[in-house]
Amino acid sequence: MPYFDAASSAPLHPVARQALLASLDEGWADPARLHREGRRAALLLDAAREAAAEAVGCRPDELVFTSSGTRAVHSAVAGALAGRRRVGRHLVLSAVEHSSVIHCAGALAAEGGSFSEVPVDRTGAVDPAAYGRALRPDTALACLQSANHEVGTEQPVAETAEICAAAGVPLMVDAAQSLGWGPVPGRWSLLAASAHKWGGPAGVGLLAVRKGVRFAPRGPVDERESGRAPGFENIPAIVAAAASLRAVRAEAAAEAVRLRALVDRIRAAVGSLVPDVEVVGDPVRRLPHLVTFSCLYVDGETLLHELDRAGFSVSSGSSCTSSTLTPSHVLKAMGVLTEGNVRVSLPAGTTDEEVDGFLGALPGVVSDVREKLGAPVPAAAAPAPRTSLVVDALGRRCPIPVIELAKVIGGVPVGGTVTVLSDDEAARLDIPAWCAMREQEYVGEEPADRGSAYVVRRLR
Amino acid sequence: MPYFDAASSAPLHPVARQALLASLDEGWADPARLHREGRRAALLLDAAREAAAEAVGCRPDELVFTSSGTRAVHSAVAGALAGRRRVGRHLVLSAVEHSSVIHCAGALAAEGGSFSEVPVDRTGAVDPAAYGRALRPDTALACLQSANHEVGTEQPVAETAEICAAAGVPLMVDAAQSLGWGPVPGRWSLLAASAHKWGGPAGVGLLAVRKGVRFAPRGPVDERESGRAPGFENIPAIVAAAASLRAVRAEAAAEAVRLRALVDRIRAAVGSLVPDVEVVGDPVRRLPHLVTFSCLYVDGETLLHELDRAGFSVSSGSSCTSSTLTPSHVLKAMGVLTEGNVRVSLPAGTTDEEVDGFLGALPGVVSDVREKLGAPVPAAAAPAPRTSLVVDALGRRCPIPVIELAKVIGGVPVGGTVTVLSDDEAARLDIPAWCAMREQEYVGEEPADRGSAYVVRRLR
Repeated sequence: MPYFDAASSAPLHPVARQALLASLDEGWADPARLHREGRRAALLLDAAREAAAEAVGCRPDELVFTSSGTRAVHSAVAGALAGRRRVGRHLVLSAVEHSSVIHCAGALAAEGGSFSEVPVDRTGAVDPAAYGRALRPDTALACLQSANHEVGTEQPVAETAEICAAAGVPLMVDAAQSLGWGPVPGRWSLLAASAHKWGGPAGVGLLAVRKGVRFAPRGPVDERESGRAPGFENIPAIVAAAASLRAVRAEAAAEAVRLRALVDRIRAAVGSLVPDVEVVGDPVRRLPHLVTFSCLYVDGETLLHELDRAGFSVSSGSSCTSSTLTPSHVLKAMGVLTEGNVRVSLPAGTTDEEVDGFLGALPGVVSDVREKLGAPVPAAAAPAPRTSLVVDALGRRCPIPVIELAKVIGGVPVGGTVTVLSDDEAARLDIPAWCAMREQEYVGEEPADRGSAYVVRRLR
Repeated sequence: MPYFDAASSAPLHPVARQALLASLDEGWADPARLHREGRRAALLLDAAREAAAEAVGCRPDELVFTSSGTRAVHSAVAGALAGRRRVGRHLVLSAVEHSSVIHCAGALAAEGGSFSEVPVDRTGAVDPAAYGRALRPDTALACLQSANHEVGTEQPVAETAEICAAAGVPLMVDAAQSLGWGPVPGRWSLLAASAHKWGGPAGVGLLAVRKGVRFAPRGPVDERESGRAPGFENIPAIVAAAASLRAVRAEAAAEAVRLRALVDRIRAAVGSLVPDVEVVGDPVRRLPHLVTFSCLYVDGETLLHELDRAGFSVSSGSSCTSSTLTPSHVLKAMGVLTEGNVRVSLPAGTTDEEVDGFLGALPGVVSDVREKLGAPVPAAAAPAPRTSLVVDALGRRCPIPVIELAKVIGGVPVGGTVTVLSDDEAARLDIPAWCAMREQEYVGEEPADRGSAYVVRRLR
């Protein structure tokens, strides 16, 4: 049963498991104590720190272990902001950061600070020059992920770091998705990562703060981890995290080539096997193991369930799969379709056969879901055209509004319009995205009694 | 090699180890995902929450897992203070709380709030009535440990909770030291605990917040753990924590009786085997497995090293063992001797023979350390007395100032004084404590060019 959701969490690497088991017996004591059990624990912790620092590309005394990647991000942002409070309370981040970074920006704004989001292009990448223009004299910190967690696009971290350095602004890199593949290049100032993304255990994050970066930990602290990560250290998990990082790095070059080829196959095949699909993200500057595509006229949650029934575990950035009903901010910032979104992220060791199986199952699963939802069939005959039509999709959720639009567009003549009434938040993104994919004109959105009216002009 | 430092961290319980191993294979995926790996992880998390809630004595939806006991305390205090911001920004805590609670009080004060420390008696216990008098109309939260981590004294939590409830102030109980022995009685509002204290793995804390308690998580949050503990859940460790809590509880009644008897033996024997020793903490209302004593004329760090060489791992609250050189705030608040302090905390399964071994080794170790330090021997002959003497112990660290005092006190007649010049912070506590133990009069402290002058009058 192939698991294709490594970007959420990777299965435990055998080396992590081995190291965890060994250090359960050696590393359970308090490393701050003077007795032999404590000294043994402290030795394990020191060795893990050295190994992790080497993999990150920093000094051991620049690196601390946190209880998760999220905590590393939260501490990095809060500490760097507090350390440069005199400079100002402005934060710059890309529009496609992980929610842990976005939540920090929200917390800053709630405390009276402010932030600027740098937009991305249709592949999901920021433009370093545009990033530089967002820096202000009162910018305390800049944040940029090394690679996007939803679409795999690599960000120009080294170039952006140079621009930030020239402006005297520290750059915090969220390296959660890429650290297992290699060190983050360039002159970054802070770095956060998460062990369970590379096959380490849950419960371990890394926080690196370069010497010379002003950093003032927020909230109550204690004497552990240089005062940057309070609470008893989880040494067995830390040892397992460091050992597995070293192990995945040793395999990274060969595995990246292999998985990159598998992903290229998926990228190429999905478009030809499934009609009305958009593969998103940069096709070249990307993580080796991750591909994301969106299927028109499909609801993401149903698609995930059906793929799960067919034996494939994938993820989705569609609003339909989230408890908040807010479509993925990443897909939204990229301006691509959010409906029927599927993220495939291959764990190390994924075989050709597993990918074959997925590509074999996908077209049938998508067409079954579309059939159930009454999605339009390309060959459908059109009745006598009227110059304008109104579709009432109020109270109906993604992807129904787009399906209804697609069904009736043939019912107006070229130059005629279809107005879709919808109160589903995703429609605001997906109707323009559908128009772009279908080469129809998206005229605009008008407020309605309930929800909005989205006007589309038929061009062909 | 007996390990007698269970209060710092207990060795992993066999049930914890078993549960951890099993759930490494089942619980590594993201429980927020819809695929089968995610659903399996979510099931494990739910089951662990139910088991832990039952052991705590709360509803499953009142309990979240944090990444450590320290984090649980920090989140409990910050969330409860923020939830009652309109009431005020005053915190009440006992003077002998764990550093994680004290750090919260410090952080509150740094942000413009205030706190009151309720003093303790010589056994380390607060008086519920005195605690009640510290509550003010602007008190947002009260904190009280269930039992003290350094001396084992149980606090009157149920009585204090009633007084707090009558005043409308929520009570946060730090149950880190006692939760493995049984649920915390009474109408507490919030509770924090730490799995590695009961033989669970590191990396898991519990935070319970009773329904109806105003609680507003601070800082960036996410959708995990009811928005109270951001970051990817460490499910294998959580499962192991819950399973081992249930297991230690099943053994608790029998093991408590057994360890209580062993501790009673140590309490009785230490005083007769070692001269000039003070056993501290409540002899009856105490944790079953923990005993603390202080030895005059001994430096805690050397004593720990020598006990470690003799094969016994213990802990100490003496300033000499801490990097900060500040003597234990617990011993200080109790007004007992801080020098030569030893905490013995027996893990489950400790045998009679191990305790015999410790009691056999202790007198020799203490007298060796004293001899090296030149501590006074009771039978030493005194030269012709002078009415007053000055001892210059400037630049010399604990326990030297007290040793020098003890050496010369016989050199002044009854009614005469000895003035000890010392710049060691511990002298301020230990010279009065020595006077109390020796029935000499502590006259007081005067500022000196360097450090202070401590004046002692010989009474016998």
